[in-house]
Amino acid sequence: MVTSDRKAPVCVLGVGLIGGSLLRAAVGAGYDAWGYNRSEAGARAARADGFEVTGDLIGVLTRARETDALIVIAVPMPAVDHILADISTFAPGCTLTDVVSVKAPVTAAVHKHGLAGRYIGGHPMAGTSESGWAATDPGLFQGAAWAVGVDEGTRPEPWTRVVRLALACGSMVVPVVADEHDRAVARISHLPHVLAEALAIAGASGGDLALGLAAGSFRDGTRVASTSPDLVRAICEPNSEALLDVLNNTLTVLARARDSLLDTGSLADLVDAGFAARQRYDTAQRWEITGIRPGDHDWLGRLREAGQRGGVITSLD
Amino acid sequence: MVTSDRKAPVCVLGVGLIGGSLLRAAVGAGYDAWGYNRSEAGARAARADGFEVTGDLIGVLTRARETDALIVIAVPMPAVDHILADISTFAPGCTLTDVVSVKAPVTAAVHKHGLAGRYIGGHPMAGTSESGWAATDPGLFQGAAWAVGVDEGTRPEPWTRVVRLALACGSMVVPVVADEHDRAVARISHLPHVLAEALAIAGASGGDLALGLAAGSFRDGTRVASTSPDLVRAICEPNSEALLDVLNNTLTVLARARDSLLDTGSLADLVDAGFAARQRYDTAQRWEITGIRPGDHDWLGRLREAGQRGGVITSLD
Repeated sequence: MVTSDRKAPVCVLGVGLIGGSLLRAAVGAGYDAWGYNRSEAGARAARADGFEVTGDLIGVLTRARETDALIVIAVPMPAVDHILADISTFAPGCTLTDVVSVKAPVTAAVHKHGLAGRYIGGHPMAGTSESGWAATDPGLFQGAAWAVGVDEGTRPEPWTRVVRLALACGSMVVPVVADEHDRAVARISHLPHVLAEALAIAGASGGDLALGLAAGSFRDGTRVASTSPDLVRAICEPNSEALLDVLNNTLTVLARARDSLLDTGSLADLVDAGFAARQRYDTAQRWEITGIRPGDHDWLGRLREAGQRGGVITSLD
Repeated sequence: MVTSDRKAPVCVLGVGLIGGSLLRAAVGAGYDAWGYNRSEAGARAARADGFEVTGDLIGVLTRARETDALIVIAVPMPAVDHILADISTFAPGCTLTDVVSVKAPVTAAVHKHGLAGRYIGGHPMAGTSESGWAATDPGLFQGAAWAVGVDEGTRPEPWTRVVRLALACGSMVVPVVADEHDRAVARISHLPHVLAEALAIAGASGGDLALGLAAGSFRDGTRVASTSPDLVRAICEPNSEALLDVLNNTLTVLARARDSLLDTGSLADLVDAGFAARQRYDTAQRWEITGIRPGDHDWLGRLREAGQRGGVITSLD
């Protein structure tokens, strides 16, 4: 049964690709939802499509406070601190989540601003190399994984609200703590950006001949190098510690492959391991987490452990 | 005007993804074409689809000799030497091309077997991570670049035959000499394979959590790691010299990015250069080479130079 309580209002701060798509998806799912956008052009484009989006942050936050809305921070990491300062001033009691690509730095900032009590980290694993309102799509989150924080101290009520929103947008929820999230996305989101940039550089260094011969493997391998440089940096740089770890590991893997090719003419170790890894990805089965209710004994630890083993939440109750 | 001379028979040795697709495309374009396949299962599958393919290499080559067919070598590099030995015995006078992913090693083998006089190197830049007859597609080469050799000593008549076949399959012809081809494909085909394998390894090392959070950037960045390990090695290892060069360059680029991230927290240099490189790829315009007729003064040098500048041949007359 859907009650008004289950669809408490949603206030989206930043209506770029992710925030804007979330606003569209939430409205489509029956939520009372509105938003803020720093650039007036983006706000105007959203209004032209019939959504309530303004550049008046104080007004938007005041409305959130008055309606006890769930606030979704959907600005890039470099803008998070500033927006948290305004939240702590104008809507300090609201439940708070975010869709930023790293979790530990957002969590630290939330603590700094005294907002940790009602904050639940979030990260929908969806996107394209496009950005801005024009790229928004209410179906962007359908079937996607949506990481939701289960860090120590998380309270059941705000957590349930955030999970309900993610499910209403069509996602599967992956319960994960901030540090483990950040290490995982360094591997499957930030490293892909770094390697795509390096591959694009190697291709273009071959001039018009190389680019003219480039086909599917180059096109796919460099796709995310089309993402705007500012956005790539805003995604990767705040996760530098985890990204450095996996980048160093990958440098080792590549240097070993180089040595093997040089010494023996063989890429067997790299290619066999890479094929097996991709097979594991292709055959990985998500499984449904059931029987853990928010507030149960050790619910956070049990959800965390289930998420580590590939479990997802597809419904609540 | 299409004459029978312009569609002299085509004999395809190996009907996997590339050779089989070529056989389909050639038949579709009105060529009398048939093939050989080492595995009887592949030959049977091709026959079931109505194509003349057998496991009788001597019979196939004898028919090629009797009909003055263009022979297309479409086996992986490790099998090239063996098949050239049979060609030199049973069809030494035939015009010869190939679709192998490297050109210098094939050229060297062709010389060794005394077949260089009528050999023109070829390489259609098309493929998927699938392989075998079941994956063949007569439209595979539509709009693709097809590298055709313009090495010193190339004679106009066999060259024209190979170019006509590539054009009939729907491709644009990129004129290129063997060494420059091999250096270019190391950048845009072989390095993508190496990086995809390394990325897949990094992702799977994060376990079910990381693989469960993986989305488009990981899926696209590892797509070619699905290719069978034997095939990847057969593609990359024969081009080890050029691949080592570009792999070393890329290790340097990545190590610099690592150092920058570690020392300053910034990925600006990598990301700006990668974005510019991908933009160059996205905006690269192929242009049509005209006015150079096979046999004209310095036609090979002029075609080579045009190919270096992104020129393609889209028609002959």
